[in-house]
Amino acid sequence: MGFRVKALIEYDGSGYAGFQVQPGRPTIQGEIEAALLRLTGEQVRILGAGRTDAGVHAEGQVIAFDTEWRHPLSHMQRGLNALLPRAIAVKELAPAPAGFHPRFDARSRRYRYRILNQPIRSPLNERYAWHVPRALDVQAMQAATRCLVGIHDFATFGQPTQGEATVREVMEVTWRCSGRLIQVEIEANAYLRNMVRCIVGSALQVGTGDCSVEAFRERFQARDRSQSGPPAPPHGLCLVKVCY
Amino acid sequence: MGFRVKALIEYDGSGYAGFQVQPGRPTIQGEIEAALLRLTGEQVRILGAGRTDAGVHAEGQVIAFDTEWRHPLSHMQRGLNALLPRAIAVKELAPAPAGFHPRFDARSRRYRYRILNQPIRSPLNERYAWHVPRALDVQAMQAATRCLVGIHDFATFGQPTQGEATVREVMEVTWRCSGRLIQVEIEANAYLRNMVRCIVGSALQVGTGDCSVEAFRERFQARDRSQSGPPAPPHGLCLVKVCY
Repeated sequence: MGFRVKALIEYDGSGYAGFQVQPGRPTIQGEIEAALLRLTGEQVRILGAGRTDAGVHAEGQVIAFDTEWRHPLSHMQRGLNALLPRAIAVKELAPAPAGFHPRFDARSRRYRYRILNQPIRSPLNERYAWHVPRALDVQAMQAATRCLVGIHDFATFGQPTQGEATVREVMEVTWRCSGRLIQVEIEANAYLRNMVRCIVGSALQVGTGDCSVEAFRERFQARDRSQSGPPAPPHGLCLVKVCY
Repeated sequence: MGFRVKALIEYDGSGYAGFQVQPGRPTIQGEIEAALLRLTGEQVRILGAGRTDAGVHAEGQVIAFDTEWRHPLSHMQRGLNALLPRAIAVKELAPAPAGFHPRFDARSRRYRYRILNQPIRSPLNERYAWHVPRALDVQAMQAATRCLVGIHDFATFGQPTQGEATVREVMEVTWRCSGRLIQVEIEANAYLRNMVRCIVGSALQVGTGDCSVEAFRERFQARDRSQSGPPAPPHGLCLVKVCY
């Protein structure tokens, strides 16, 4: 008798074409399904909470799948971590209710974006932070993104992944500085495609002074995709947590 | 007329056979000399403050070289950072006295070693921390390494890089925990080959309980290379700072 399993996944997305399976390209989903096939002999299709883009990392991706595994789940976790590439790890593995769906059941997702704001690029931060040499006014960026909190139409900052609706609820936008590292964490019930990267890219234009706080707000309220700044690059982005 | 230049270098040592030039293998020194040749047309030999091993990183390596460069040094820095691989960057570049030698003039060097102490490996910490699944008693490790501070014979923990002397002065050993990350910083006037990695490897045996604090002290005092624990792997190590 099969049952459903839920797992918490961490990955370095650098070498991957994103979470979702794409024929002929390395993906997180593809690697996990291949490891499951080798370990269990089962050809499973895993479900993921968020389809992270190429190059985006995750500390807390949640997946689910069905299996007929008869041994302790701790053995499955150990087996998967031995078979998976070093860039992917299963942090937790537990039985889940049969109907559990990591995407549809999620109440919210939290993403973090990291900017390294200093004149010279930093090899040791290269993989996990966007290097921005121009001085940034973090307080202005913070002020600009305050208007995003609440239930709004985010059409300026992304395309819907399915359907037409572009209304999402942002629960929190928190900026934090530690030395030259600027971090913003965004929690929302769901996201449009590219939404966090477009918000960060547009906020950056406020940080450099190229766009005022008021203009940012107007561009957001225009609900017009062409009003977004260029999306920030993927490698600064990390899916931190999915809440149920 | 040539003059001497001093530079502060950061690098991710993952892909390199160490700092020092080795024929036919990628090295930090080799990359910097190649970039200098391309930029200035000069075949220079750079001097480094510390010869980091293969896979060891640096936030604050110091190098020096002679050049006949006639433009502002800020242009040389920008040029080098454009030519160097992403894994290497010049953080600062300044004129230095003609006799300046980054190794012989250094008063002390500070290294940091990072251990990630949790059952499951972490892809996002994979490059810069040693993953140790067994629970570690950090207070015991701290207690054990206290005896290293001062002027001592460190023969247990490494071979001299040149000559016979194995006496070094350790000014400081500081342990710090932040979540599952354990960091130790060691400052010494100079190091034997492998010294930090052997100290960390031996301290780890105290942390797991395989060796007592007293036994660690005895092994240290034996001044016997065979008494060292296995060296900790290179990727957790970083040359943080060189003091003059």
